[in-house]
Amino acid sequence: MARSEIKIGGFGGQGVILSGYIIGRAAAIYDNKYATMIQAFGPEARGSACSAQVIVDTDPIAYPYITSPGVLVVMSQEAYSRFLPELDQGGTLITEEDLVTVRNLRKDIRHRAVPATRFAEELGKRLVLNIVMMGFFSAVTDIAGKDAMRKAVQMSVPKGTEELNLKAFDRGWEYGMRLIGMPADTAH
Amino acid sequence: MARSEIKIGGFGGQGVILSGYIIGRAAAIYDNKYATMIQAFGPEARGSACSAQVIVDTDPIAYPYITSPGVLVVMSQEAYSRFLPELDQGGTLITEEDLVTVRNLRKDIRHRAVPATRFAEELGKRLVLNIVMMGFFSAVTDIAGKDAMRKAVQMSVPKGTEELNLKAFDRGWEYGMRLIGMPADTAH
Repeated sequence: MARSEIKIGGFGGQGVILSGYIIGRAAAIYDNKYATMIQAFGPEARGSACSAQVIVDTDPIAYPYITSPGVLVVMSQEAYSRFLPELDQGGTLITEEDLVTVRNLRKDIRHRAVPATRFAEELGKRLVLNIVMMGFFSAVTDIAGKDAMRKAVQMSVPKGTEELNLKAFDRGWEYGMRLIGMPADTAH
Repeated sequence: MARSEIKIGGFGGQGVILSGYIIGRAAAIYDNKYATMIQAFGPEARGSACSAQVIVDTDPIAYPYITSPGVLVVMSQEAYSRFLPELDQGGTLITEEDLVTVRNLRKDIRHRAVPATRFAEELGKRLVLNIVMMGFFSAVTDIAGKDAMRKAVQMSVPKGTEELNLKAFDRGWEYGMRLIGMPADTAH
């Protein structure tokens, strides 16, 4: 892998930005790659949709904007409709199963869905759904490994919430590993 | 104002990224400017320091990296020591009063300190200290106005926490207005 481009979308307050931050941090700090995360805001961005662009590269990143992400993670229907056309040929679409309805998807796209809200609610805190998504992301892509992502989660969430967030991560990760047909106790 | 460059630093879990996001969103969406927020992660970034670079401009932003911020907001001693040398000539330094000790400051720097942690604790939730900082930031700089920032806070924090976060914002804003010698009921 040289350069991976990831776009994450959802609505405000859902933890979209923190998700991107965790991927960037995991890739750069623990996997010895470089990463940038960027949000661009313009007068046209008046909706409640919120997005983060993350780039992970084996070299320093001079141009941090994404034109065509290889992975799109969406947590709302609006973000799905808005960002899907950007997804690269042969790209991976990751959706929150209960928040996003997917229909008539382009044949070249690999689609992976996870009931992250339900898992988060089972853990007692709906807010950690983005961290469930990140566990799932780690399992179904090869951009940032499990250990690096877990450490990044630990360093990035509010003090005192680490344990809950790691549980949420593991829940998403295990589900992702089962989905792609690998035993969840396999190191990734 | 053409281009304003702001750097925010603290440690993971403190809400540094959300703070930058709120500034960018406020400036772009409600003040009709453009904004970008970027985090760059490299293998050297192994510490717990966490930072966000925000640019607000009247024109679209082609180059989103900051070399010399005009405003530096810091919420930890490590971020202070690390990022202070970057602060532009005549720049504004905003610190969390109890978390950052400032000594022998360059004479060209304008320093504004706020006891954000104390205010946040008085509101019953230490976590909102970053939002107190954002209220203070809005008052003591002219980058993003009060109403725009309040709307951005409302749209960016988790559902159900809006009221608390707006209280935190107002607390910081009023303190900032008093500090710069303007009555807190003046529109900014």
